[in-house]
Amino acid sequence: MLGKFIVFEGIDGAGKTTQLDLLGRELENRGYPVVYTREPGGTRVGELIREILLNPLYGELAPRAEAFLYAAARAQLVAQVIIPALEAGKIVLCDRFVDSSLAYQGFGRGMDILMLEQINRPAIAGLVPDLVLLLDFCCDDAIDRLSRSGRGADRIEQEQQEFYRRVRLGYLSLAGREPGRYNIIDANRPVDLVLCDILKAVGEVLNEVTERNNRA
Amino acid sequence: MLGKFIVFEGIDGAGKTTQLDLLGRELENRGYPVVYTREPGGTRVGELIREILLNPLYGELAPRAEAFLYAAARAQLVAQVIIPALEAGKIVLCDRFVDSSLAYQGFGRGMDILMLEQINRPAIAGLVPDLVLLLDFCCDDAIDRLSRSGRGADRIEQEQQEFYRRVRLGYLSLAGREPGRYNIIDANRPVDLVLCDILKAVGEVLNEVTERNNRA
Repeated sequence: MLGKFIVFEGIDGAGKTTQLDLLGRELENRGYPVVYTREPGGTRVGELIREILLNPLYGELAPRAEAFLYAAARAQLVAQVIIPALEAGKIVLCDRFVDSSLAYQGFGRGMDILMLEQINRPAIAGLVPDLVLLLDFCCDDAIDRLSRSGRGADRIEQEQQEFYRRVRLGYLSLAGREPGRYNIIDANRPVDLVLCDILKAVGEVLNEVTERNNRA
Repeated sequence: MLGKFIVFEGIDGAGKTTQLDLLGRELENRGYPVVYTREPGGTRVGELIREILLNPLYGELAPRAEAFLYAAARAQLVAQVIIPALEAGKIVLCDRFVDSSLAYQGFGRGMDILMLEQINRPAIAGLVPDLVLLLDFCCDDAIDRLSRSGRGADRIEQEQQEFYRRVRLGYLSLAGREPGRYNIIDANRPVDLVLCDILKAVGEVLNEVTERNNRA
């Protein structure tokens, strides 16, 4: 793959979307071709799936059906957007990826982690992020931030504080398994300081691409 | 499980839906509690997924995403409808189940059968039909029947004759793995003759339930 695949992870309210946009703009200013995407969604089919997943109307959604819907949106995103963009040498910034399923459904809601990994294996088709930026955020702050934002809480966001604690610890545990691939960013700070850490973390990825472009 | 789980399988146009309705009415006339359902769909979430799957607009749907969507609808149907109905002692008649994924995506479109089985294992949660009625139907007739019905062909039905041949052989191969559970019905005959064979095939299941009811 010529491009680079950078994933933002973290609990709701940690600032992933904001930081992803800021990083993308910074990368574009430096001349990198950037593709912005998100999970669940990022494709026409994926956005339809997202509507089912995040709609509080469908409270009857079975845990395994939910896992399969995330995997379906993911498989579509990988095949239709991420792999073609990476093959074209672009930098793909993705808001959430497979770790969100493991952290939320596995660590957060107690589904079997091994089963979730098995379900997701065909969805990602061997694709692994070059860098996972884990925006680590104190759960109490996350819930405050969401309620202040006034945008209302979707089905998942309605889950309780204790749930977010388990998800956060799940993320930290996933990061602990592959410290080389993960970068844990303290997101309990002003936006510009968080961005500064993120830019440092993507430095190596940037340098690698720059060097290749200079040689080309 | 107190109830019985009877699945109809076969290529499009084989008459599954007609025969399922006829069998259900016959069983109801004999006093059995019957639940009618279908795949993909059969639940509120499943019907939304069905709309994505069968809509010719979404031609970009990746094969793995498709497999996950079928598995999602299936997992929801099993958890929300089939298992509760079986636990309540009902006879569940289901239009398609996991074999449709294996026959269509696997044998028909060449996806890895083992991967499809792995994807579906968590979806069915250990549930296995008591009887699979395979309506075996000559592919050329199936295409004629669909075009005569005037209801138009959905995305899957638009696939070619050669595809249906592979699917049909796939079904026969699946039936060959478990002859005790499958009953192959020659569906190239008038409706009443086909129903007659179906009633014979479900005879043992019926007797089992009748005997239990008589004892109760």
